[in-house]
Amino acid sequence: MTRIAVLGAGSWGTTFAKVLADAALSNTEATDVVLWARRAEVAEEITSRHTNSTYLGEIALPETITATSDLSVAVDGAEIVVLALPAQSLRSHLGQVRDALAPGAVVVSLIKGLERGTDMRMSEVIAEELGLPDDQIAVASGPNLAMEIAREEPTASVVACRDVAVAERIATACNNHYFRPYTNTDVTGVEIAGIVKNVIALAVGICDGQQLGDNSKASVITRGLAETTRLALKLGGRLETFSGLAGLGDLVATCASPLSRNRSAGRLLGEGLSADEVTQQLTQTAEGMKSGAAVLELARTHEVEMPICEAVVAVLEGKLSVDNIASLLLARDLKAEHPKAAATDAAAAAAHAAEGK
Amino acid sequence: MTRIAVLGAGSWGTTFAKVLADAALSNTEATDVVLWARRAEVAEEITSRHTNSTYLGEIALPETITATSDLSVAVDGAEIVVLALPAQSLRSHLGQVRDALAPGAVVVSLIKGLERGTDMRMSEVIAEELGLPDDQIAVASGPNLAMEIAREEPTASVVACRDVAVAERIATACNNHYFRPYTNTDVTGVEIAGIVKNVIALAVGICDGQQLGDNSKASVITRGLAETTRLALKLGGRLETFSGLAGLGDLVATCASPLSRNRSAGRLLGEGLSADEVTQQLTQTAEGMKSGAAVLELARTHEVEMPICEAVVAVLEGKLSVDNIASLLLARDLKAEHPKAAATDAAAAAAHAAEGK
Repeated sequence: MTRIAVLGAGSWGTTFAKVLADAALSNTEATDVVLWARRAEVAEEITSRHTNSTYLGEIALPETITATSDLSVAVDGAEIVVLALPAQSLRSHLGQVRDALAPGAVVVSLIKGLERGTDMRMSEVIAEELGLPDDQIAVASGPNLAMEIAREEPTASVVACRDVAVAERIATACNNHYFRPYTNTDVTGVEIAGIVKNVIALAVGICDGQQLGDNSKASVITRGLAETTRLALKLGGRLETFSGLAGLGDLVATCASPLSRNRSAGRLLGEGLSADEVTQQLTQTAEGMKSGAAVLELARTHEVEMPICEAVVAVLEGKLSVDNIASLLLARDLKAEHPKAAATDAAAAAAHAAEGK
Repeated sequence: MTRIAVLGAGSWGTTFAKVLADAALSNTEATDVVLWARRAEVAEEITSRHTNSTYLGEIALPETITATSDLSVAVDGAEIVVLALPAQSLRSHLGQVRDALAPGAVVVSLIKGLERGTDMRMSEVIAEELGLPDDQIAVASGPNLAMEIAREEPTASVVACRDVAVAERIATACNNHYFRPYTNTDVTGVEIAGIVKNVIALAVGICDGQQLGDNSKASVITRGLAETTRLALKLGGRLETFSGLAGLGDLVATCASPLSRNRSAGRLLGEGLSADEVTQQLTQTAEGMKSGAAVLELARTHEVEMPICEAVVAVLEGKLSVDNIASLLLARDLKAEHPKAAATDAAAAAAHAAEGK
C-alpha cells in the first residue's frame, strides 16, 4: 500500500490529489491519498462528501482521497509528500513536515513563487529546512489550470527532479487518462519558468485592462519568455525547458485563460486600481504580486535585464502609471532581434536567442 | 522622392501601406506609397475616399497613399515592392512585376504560405521568377493582426533579409509610433514560422470547436512550435527565430485572436464541418487549409515528424474524425520532455530542444 500526502487543499492541491488518486485507480495500485486542509470543515467535507466546494464546486473527488486538518497525520508514513501551500508560508510549515517525514520520502513542490526576503526557490527552501538531497526533491509544473484538470480535460505537464529515476517514479504516480506528465531534470529552469510566469501574466493582464490587442500581448509574452530564459540560464537552468510545457506551455495557458488569478489581477491594475485595491477585490492570492519584487532582486543580483518584470513591479509599487505601459512594448532604436545570431558557435547562438534582444 | 509599391489591397496589404505611409510622414521623408488593387472600384475608393471599406471598415488611410488597378503602373519606378498577394497566385503575378521592376529594387514578401505543387517558399518563388539575388528579397512577419495595426495599436514585427543592411533599410521604411520592426537575417526560418503557424492555428481552432480548454490549447501551441522548429532547422533556419516575434510571437497572437481566419476555420472543422463546408462559409482564405498538405510534403521529404500538422491535414482530407483530436495531445508512453538534453554539447541540446520529444 503506497501512501501519498498532499499538503494544501486549495484548487491545485485538491485537483492534484484527484490526479494522483485517479492514476492509482487506473494503475490498479493500492494507494492512499491523504489531503491536508488547514480548515477542519474543508477536511471533513472532502472525506465525507468527496467534494471541495470552496475551490472546485461540485466536482466529485475519488473516494480513495481522505482529508485531515492534522499535518503530521497526513505526512506520517507517506512515501511521496506533495506541497501545494502558499509560497510565502511554505517555510513555516516545513518544521512540522520534517518531524513526521518518513526516511527516503520524496517531496514534490507544486508551488510557484520565490520566498520574499531570501529570494529562494521553493526547492531551495525545502532542501534547507528538511535537509534533503536532490534525489528526494521534485517539482511539477506545466500548462495546468486546475479547474480544467479537475474537469478531466486532457493536459500535459512536467515532473522535474535532478535524479531522472525519481522523476519517472513521480510521473508514474500521477499519470492517468487526462494528465500526461513528461520528465525533466532541470529543476531550476522549471521553477524559474513557473515563478516568472506569474509576473508576465500580470503584464498581459495589464494590457487587457488597457484594452491593448492580441499583437501587443503576444509581444509581451514573447519578450517575457525571453527575459525569463535569460534569468534561468544565469541560474543554471536549461534553454530547452523554456520552449517546453513548463516554459512556453504554462505561460501561454495562463495568459490565455480567464481563470488565471494573476492575469485577472493584472487586468484590474490595468484598469487603474492600486495593488492594495486589487488584493482587496480578489479572494485568492495573485502570487506574481508577491514574487515580483523578489524576481527583480534576483535579476539584479545576477545582472540580468528584465524590463517587463521591472515595469510590472513599478506599477505594483505605484511608481509607474499603467497608461505608460504601452510604450514599454516598443524599444527606442531599430535593432536586430538577435544581434549575435550570426555567431557560428551554436551554443552562443542559443544563448543569444534566449537574450531575445 | 522614394516610391514604394504594395501589391494586394486586402486587409494586410492595405494596412502595411498605411504603416509605410505613416512611417514616411514621421520620418519627414518624401515618399509615395502606391497600392495595387485587383478591382478598380477598390483602387478608386482608396485614392478618393482614403478608405478600404471591404477590409478595414471606416479606418482612415493617409492621403499620401494612392491606388491603381494597373500592376505595372504601381511597380514602375518603385524602389521597394511589397507583395501582399495570395500565396497560390503569387507566381502568376510575377511576370508583370518582372517587366516593370526597377533595377536594384527590393521585393518584400508579406505572404505566409507554400506554393502547392512545388512546395516552395514565397522567397524562393520570387527568386526564381524575378531572377533576384538574396539582397533584393526580404520578408516581414510577426504578431501582426492587420486590424489591430490599422487601429494603430502598438506592435512589434520582424523584417528579414540575408543582407542585414537591406533588412535595416526596409525596417526604417516601416518604422513608426505603432509599428516597431526588428531585423533578422534568417529568411528561411521567418518564412517557415509564418507558414506552419497557419496550420497550428487550425489545430488550436479545432480544439476550440471541440470545447477543449486552455491547457490543451497551450500544449498544442507548445508542441506545434517545436515541430515547426524541427522542420525549419532541417531547412537551414535558425533556432532563435522561433523563440522570437516571427515564431512564438506570431503563433501566440494568431492562436489568441478571434480575428484569425485560420483559427476560425479550425473552429468550424472542430464543430464537425467538412473542409468544403468551411471554405463555403468563410469569405476570406484560411491559408493553412491550402498550405497544410504542402507543409507535410516538405516534412516527409526532409524526414521531420510533424504529428500536429499530420492530424490537421488528415482532418482536412476527411481521414480523421475531429472527435479523435484530443487523444493526439497525449503520447502513449511516459517519457522525457527532452530526452537528449543531458548531452553536454550545447548545440546538440539546442537542436534536441527543438525536437521537443
